[in-house]
Amino acid sequence: MLIAKVVGTTVSTIKDEKIIGQKLLIVRQTDENGEPFGKPYVAVDTVNAGVGDLVLTASGSSARQTTITKDRPVDAVIMAMIDSLEVDGKVTFRKG
Amino acid sequence: MLIAKVVGTTVSTIKDEKIIGQKLLIVRQTDENGEPFGKPYVAVDTVNAGVGDLVLTASGSSARQTTITKDRPVDAVIMAMIDSLEVDGKVTFRKG
Amino acid sequence: MLIAKVVGTTVSTIKDEKIIGQKLLIVRQTDENGEPFGKPYVAVDTVNAGVGDLVLTASGSSARQTTITKDRPVDAVIMAMIDSLEVDGKVTFRKG
Amino acid sequence: MLIAKVVGTTVSTIKDEKIIGQKLLIVRQTDENGEPFGKPYVAVDTVNAGVGDLVLTASGSSARQTTITKDRPVDAVIMAMIDSLEVDGKVTFRKG
Amino acid sequence: MLIAKVVGTTVSTIKDEKIIGQKLLIVRQTDENGEPFGKPYVAVDTVNAGVGDLVLTASGSSARQTTITKDRPVDAVIMAMIDSLEVDGKVTFRKG
Repeated sequence: MLIAKVVGTTVSTIKDEKIIGQKLLIVRQTDENGEPFGKPYVAVDTVNAGVGDLVLTASGSSARQTTITKDRPVDAVIMAMIDSLEVDGKVTFRKG
Repeated sequence: MLIAKVVGTTVSTIKDEKIIGQKLLIVRQTDENGEPFGKPYVAVDTVNAGVGDLVLTASGSSARQTTITKDRPVDAVIMAMIDSLEVDGKVTFRKG
Repeated sequence: MLIAKVVGTTVSTIKDEKIIGQKLLIVRQTDENGEPFGKPYVAVDTVNAGVGDLVLTASGSSARQTTITKDRPVDAVIMAMIDSLEVDGKVTFRKG
Repeated sequence: MLIAKVVGTTVSTIKDEKIIGQKLLIVRQTDENGEPFGKPYVAVDTVNAGVGDLVLTASGSSARQTTITKDRPVDAVIMAMIDSLEVDGKVTFRKG
Repeated sequence: MLIAKVVGTTVSTIKDEKIIGQKLLIVRQTDENGEPFGKPYVAVDTVNAGVGDLVLTASGSSARQTTITKDRPVDAVIMAMIDSLEVDGKVTFRKG
């Protein structure tokens, strides 16, 4: 899984019928401090995440193992909200 | 999923029988403003996309979860047209 | 899928029994003009491609969706020969 | 598989029901000497690993082939603790 | 598949029960001349390879398509030994 920050939202009217009703959020991978880097990607939300939240995303076929995403053409899913991260004994992130 | 821009088309006469009739478009990943970067890749169109459209692509086995791509040897699919993107509360892309 | 150029061949005597008889070609990803970049990878040929041909390759589990590659331990397949590529309304490659 | 070092832990209250009870550790890929490089990723622990341990992680659908991770939305798993590594005839890492 | 050179070995006592007895080798991707580059990864050997051999590795779910690796939590497999490579009509590697 990647640590990622939710940074935005997408709107799509024309889409595969299997993703109708799926909430597609724009996220960016972060480091262990929750600092985003690199280019955005899009993941299906399954935990009611919002912009600003730090989350975990799973990719590939693993993204289809939730009840919400099963058998759907999606390759990334937000499957957990992060409360806190600890690295080498120090808290590097705590949800505000 | 990746945000991508459709930039071109491919023509193939000799190909695996399972991809006969599939529309293979050249796309490039974009940032949250719809600006392409990096090298092109090729995805099967399932939403009647055309050159210039901003789309979402799903990769890997997830690319085979649409009715059009099921069981076919394709590893990327265009499964949504993007109407608009919003990042950190600002609209960064809106379809013209 | 990636646009790739066939650049060479491999010979293997000792190999998994499931890939006996498979033609393994060395390819390199190209840009939209058919210019190779980056390091070589190896893909199973299913379209009778030869050195110099521009092709499409599919990766991952999608590489096992052809009749030739089904259930075999291969993660890349050549599933189409490219006749021509067109980007932003201009032909960027045409088979010689 | 990647050689990786366990560097930290994650805490998540809100998450997909299928990952309740899974221990999600922060790891970083290392070189053959066990020196970490690059950004962290998160993997499910199946071998009772702790911070500081050198481990092997498997990714993608392979991450779901353990009893603990079967059918769960996780794309990386710690499936072995590393006792020692030997490269070109020299021991490059030995567990302290 | 990637062209890779076997550079070392791993020893693990504590591991998932499904990989007991699997031979896990350290490999590095090479170019078409057999010159390694980049960081090491670990693959299951199915062809009795040893340090110094040039091999092909398959990744992802394809790594589980051999008799030895079926249903196991491994994401890379050595499925062929390379005798020779030829690029643009010249032999770039021949087993010594």
